[in-house]
Amino acid sequence: MAIAASLSEDRNPGSRAALDRLSALVEADMQGVNRLIIERMDSPVALIPQLASHIVAAGGKRMRPMMTLAAAQMLGYRGDGHLKLAAAVEFIHTATLLHDDVVDESDLRRGVDSANAVWGNKPSVLVGDFLFSRAFQLMVETGELQVLAILSNASAVIAQGEVQQLITANDISTDETAYLEVIRAKTAQLFAAATEVGGVIAGANEAQRQALDSYGLNLGIAFQLTDDVLDYSAKQAELGKAVGDDFRDGKITLPIILAVQRASAEERAFWQRTLEEQDIRDGDLEHAFALLQKHGVLAEALERARAYGKAAREALLTLPDGPVRAALDDLIDFTIERAF
Amino acid sequence: MAIAASLSEDRNPGSRAALDRLSALVEADMQGVNRLIIERMDSPVALIPQLASHIVAAGGKRMRPMMTLAAAQMLGYRGDGHLKLAAAVEFIHTATLLHDDVVDESDLRRGVDSANAVWGNKPSVLVGDFLFSRAFQLMVETGELQVLAILSNASAVIAQGEVQQLITANDISTDETAYLEVIRAKTAQLFAAATEVGGVIAGANEAQRQALDSYGLNLGIAFQLTDDVLDYSAKQAELGKAVGDDFRDGKITLPIILAVQRASAEERAFWQRTLEEQDIRDGDLEHAFALLQKHGVLAEALERARAYGKAAREALLTLPDGPVRAALDDLIDFTIERAF
Repeated sequence: MAIAASLSEDRNPGSRAALDRLSALVEADMQGVNRLIIERMDSPVALIPQLASHIVAAGGKRMRPMMTLAAAQMLGYRGDGHLKLAAAVEFIHTATLLHDDVVDESDLRRGVDSANAVWGNKPSVLVGDFLFSRAFQLMVETGELQVLAILSNASAVIAQGEVQQLITANDISTDETAYLEVIRAKTAQLFAAATEVGGVIAGANEAQRQALDSYGLNLGIAFQLTDDVLDYSAKQAELGKAVGDDFRDGKITLPIILAVQRASAEERAFWQRTLEEQDIRDGDLEHAFALLQKHGVLAEALERARAYGKAAREALLTLPDGPVRAALDDLIDFTIERAF
Repeated sequence: MAIAASLSEDRNPGSRAALDRLSALVEADMQGVNRLIIERMDSPVALIPQLASHIVAAGGKRMRPMMTLAAAQMLGYRGDGHLKLAAAVEFIHTATLLHDDVVDESDLRRGVDSANAVWGNKPSVLVGDFLFSRAFQLMVETGELQVLAILSNASAVIAQGEVQQLITANDISTDETAYLEVIRAKTAQLFAAATEVGGVIAGANEAQRQALDSYGLNLGIAFQLTDDVLDYSAKQAELGKAVGDDFRDGKITLPIILAVQRASAEERAFWQRTLEEQDIRDGDLEHAFALLQKHGVLAEALERARAYGKAAREALLTLPDGPVRAALDDLIDFTIERAF
């Protein structure tokens, strides 16, 4: 696909290695987290672990729990509370994926059939609720009220962001500010909370907590900006995800917002028909690709992601130097350059 | 309807007065709870308070928060943490209703169109998540980790119970034990937790906590048993609820379990066709009513409810005597006799 080819000029072969370096640093802890995840998603009601393991086993990169573990390690934490927090963070993330599947009626999630497609809406909603409750049980076990405050606040903000996203869907008058509010809430807030709670359990001071929060928040925004570019990239297909889902759902992401701003009258009519009226015909996705390329908006959206990556990098500077901080720095590049 | 007429022989005109007595005792506190509910369901995302107030305004009896308030008052609590807990309990309840509407595709809830019917599945799931998060924020504000433990455990059990209910639906081989497990989890657990946390914040000792938990649990089981009878009662229609919802959904409740046990071959074939195969024709609901009446199973289910009510009554005996305890005792009768 032409777009992927043009983007791949920025190809950064070291980006996957960056993720691997962080993974190696937290590997022993992550094994503990994985054991906790398996243990706590169990239930006498067999459908629950069946459905939960479907989505948990599908894996993903476990970026969020990794950030919790890394933050705790960077601040010299000795104990096992961070494992519980990391598992709690992954459960909250999994619960939102399950509920998001209901919401978006998406058919593909991480390259396997979505839980929703396999079991239907009902169990997906309820197993999401179960995992969400399990997340709070794990937090309670750490005895850290601050952690409960941070993650319950984050959960409320995430839900607000998801509702806001529903409202902006199919509305091409959505502007960049509204879009950024949505991704800050629905995605970046959990990255921020995941990183901050790792610090909190390690006894971070106020400045360190703020730095961890800022790193996570900016990284999360960069992550979502990149994700929204990937939805129009051939690379996405290699990652086992469907391309063009956002287009078919009428999601108004930054590439679309920028392309609409620059649209001719004819192009505007195309976006109206496809995104607002959801009248999508053969060849429309390819035409959308062509318009995004013509206006250079995918590259521009990635530039925005890099600006947030820079802010994340600056936040790291006040935190203890060492291999973990270096790996978190590298993670910024991975997050943005995974598109290539 | 003939069934309602036969049941109304047990009519207890004092039952509504029992609820009113408890309401009067906690009235000032409940006004505080209602203010908190309005305040905390607010959000800059306008759809959230719109949708939430639709279900919260529909009212209901606020039995669960009332139990939290009553338990705190009975144990002499001075403070306002119990208002936050009562609001949290109501938010958890509301969230489960919103998610249950998605699950059951029910069209009527408390006599108004369900949120799901008005706004669709997507916002209902997300606003439920929002309220659930708000509940945990409120609990965190009280600074009581034990409360967070009790209500996060309860939430996990509720979700398990709801999934278990999905599994037993449309399966007429479900037995009474499995049914009791489901209602204990999906309904009684929140009654138990609501009552217990009111005591916890008031500094209840272990024996008092167990008594409050036992009262709430047994009352909750009695409540659900009665609700499941009401779904086949003409009285239900007067309460603004649809009659026969459980029948149409293929829910296997105690009246059905007992009727299936006593069914002739022909009757069994009827239950199989309607509940298992969900092939429901004109006149089937009336025939179901007739079979339930013929085997006397509605009255028998209410007898079971009364046995749980007795256990709830016994649990109260170890708690401080006074007007609140007397009102909680009366609440047992209201819970069961509201059918009449």
